[in-house]
Amino acid sequence: MSCDYEALAARGVQGLQPYQPGKPVDELARELGLDPARIVKLASNENPLGPSDRVTAAVEKALPEVTRYPDGAAYTLRQTLAERLNVAPEMLTFGNGSNDVLELVARAFAEPGAEIVYSEHAFAVYPIVIQAIGADHVKVPAVNWGHDLDAMAAAITERTRVVFVANPNNPTGTVVEKDAVYRFLQRVPENVIVVLDEAYCEYLQGPQYADGVQWLSEFPNLVVSRTFSKAWGLAGLRMGYGISSPEIADVINRVRQPFNANALAQAAATAVLDDQAYIDRAIEVNRAGLEQLAGGFDRLGLDYIPSAANFIALDTGTDANEVNDALLREGVIVRPVGAYGMPRHLRVSVGLEHENRRCLEALEKVLG
Amino acid sequence: MSCDYEALAARGVQGLQPYQPGKPVDELARELGLDPARIVKLASNENPLGPSDRVTAAVEKALPEVTRYPDGAAYTLRQTLAERLNVAPEMLTFGNGSNDVLELVARAFAEPGAEIVYSEHAFAVYPIVIQAIGADHVKVPAVNWGHDLDAMAAAITERTRVVFVANPNNPTGTVVEKDAVYRFLQRVPENVIVVLDEAYCEYLQGPQYADGVQWLSEFPNLVVSRTFSKAWGLAGLRMGYGISSPEIADVINRVRQPFNANALAQAAATAVLDDQAYIDRAIEVNRAGLEQLAGGFDRLGLDYIPSAANFIALDTGTDANEVNDALLREGVIVRPVGAYGMPRHLRVSVGLEHENRRCLEALEKVLG
Repeated sequence: MSCDYEALAARGVQGLQPYQPGKPVDELARELGLDPARIVKLASNENPLGPSDRVTAAVEKALPEVTRYPDGAAYTLRQTLAERLNVAPEMLTFGNGSNDVLELVARAFAEPGAEIVYSEHAFAVYPIVIQAIGADHVKVPAVNWGHDLDAMAAAITERTRVVFVANPNNPTGTVVEKDAVYRFLQRVPENVIVVLDEAYCEYLQGPQYADGVQWLSEFPNLVVSRTFSKAWGLAGLRMGYGISSPEIADVINRVRQPFNANALAQAAATAVLDDQAYIDRAIEVNRAGLEQLAGGFDRLGLDYIPSAANFIALDTGTDANEVNDALLREGVIVRPVGAYGMPRHLRVSVGLEHENRRCLEALEKVLG
Repeated sequence: MSCDYEALAARGVQGLQPYQPGKPVDELARELGLDPARIVKLASNENPLGPSDRVTAAVEKALPEVTRYPDGAAYTLRQTLAERLNVAPEMLTFGNGSNDVLELVARAFAEPGAEIVYSEHAFAVYPIVIQAIGADHVKVPAVNWGHDLDAMAAAITERTRVVFVANPNNPTGTVVEKDAVYRFLQRVPENVIVVLDEAYCEYLQGPQYADGVQWLSEFPNLVVSRTFSKAWGLAGLRMGYGISSPEIADVINRVRQPFNANALAQAAATAVLDDQAYIDRAIEVNRAGLEQLAGGFDRLGLDYIPSAANFIALDTGTDANEVNDALLREGVIVRPVGAYGMPRHLRVSVGLEHENRRCLEALEKVLG
């Protein structure tokens, strides 16, 4: 080929490295000739329970209409979710997962040359989105693996358009305290959009939980993003949402693909919102699993970052890629996080009791 | 609110008007108090058959795994589709509908200040995508409602990054002949990406059909985009794809959200590709429906643009919005296309025999 298409790409896109997802079970089975049924995947912070029965019923009910385009306004889900959150329906923006919402906010407000602020060790999608736009990265050093909100506020300049704050953060599981978030919001100028990424907020119950929705009326520059991919168990279907002032929602909506939220995801999300027993069980299974994994790591003498989410970042004390390769050969998929500036850590998602046990046994064998 | 968030938006996003989708049946039913079962929707170029049985079975089979993220590489669908198209698997890029593919190509190759060429009366998503990027629109006047490929080639400058060619075009149903497309591809410089949007290609059988895939080896700057939303009957699930050189696919892939193609859409698309009887029936029902609608328009003395797709642009001879409002009150949803520079036209999608008849009866009543 005589033409170099990488060199023709938009500046930000040149040299951009796409997100590396967790290895699918089938892929590992193909690669190593393993029985898929013997593989344990604790790599993508998924709900290990399987879907709510109400999801199954709702998808089957919606299926005969799947030749029709989705409702681009997501009317039914919008009404249901607005009522649950006690916000106006026009404050919601739906996305193809919250990844979509994060990207839409950045694309709506940032251009090449704008600055976007985020934390070291924060969710990998932030730098990818920033790079794709051709905006400038302002990565603020973490403190004890967590966000340094004072330093992030101080990093804001006249060119800053967006700040991403993940609470809890992925892949560290760290939390920024409620009071600290509030003080941060008070410091950020009103013309800088703050995205409070609460993808894991359902796991963070009690007084520790900041709940960004409470501050929407006070801070018009605030966007809270959430997802149905984690506690609600709909990762495969893709559904996330942003909550913001109607004015900001209107701006984001302009760059949204009209049918970004598919019809079965809308039906499933609407149905699962009614299943309080499911979400309660998901949270309880996660609480028990965090305890089981942390206890196991303690017994193995392994250090880890205390987590408020549905995963734990484990310090292998060595090159995590090597440990990861050995775990893969044992049929256990976890996630190396070298790309997050954490070359010794593996992120272990919380699974069911027997999955967590398999992971701990494999770790003991591999590291022992 | 003291801050004007529209004024803070990226330049292209300011003043951007989002795509106006066809009115969902439930929305019309709510607005006019009609029985949803009595409403006929011929507004979104959907397959009127309902989904293939294989789709239903595949979705039900995949459903228990919906708590897992989709395979970001879409391994199974990729292998199946590559084999069917007789292209290398790495030539495929999957999108959340082909809307996603069109947007990804533009975002990968165009920045603010770049030019993107497209035709008057072409698919509305092109100008939206161009505007969102902040790139410059080069809209080339149509001839007889169709693309003027000579003028489009002549409109290319040093700033041109992408050209969109829809074949057949939506909403006009016009076709560019095979030889004309080939001559056009020969004229376009290799450093300008040509997107041949073949969303409706399945309806265009026989020697008339250009089939862009045949030219991929000769023109390294060619991207063919297609969808499962139309003839394949998966609009609600969202699945489209691009076919290009692996080099261009790699560049596009960098701006793709890692889980843009949801798990049930992957399973459904893989399954329906095997259902030759379904696609054959979809094409036959569409052929008969085109004839039925055109015959009805002829009897009513209404002009229309001859169409090779699954819709017909009907010339109402008056303000189409008024006719549309009257049709809505009759429970018939079609699509006004004033935003496409066609204020007298309504786009009527081909439905089942009784739906087409309902539409023709309503038109006769409203216009009679």
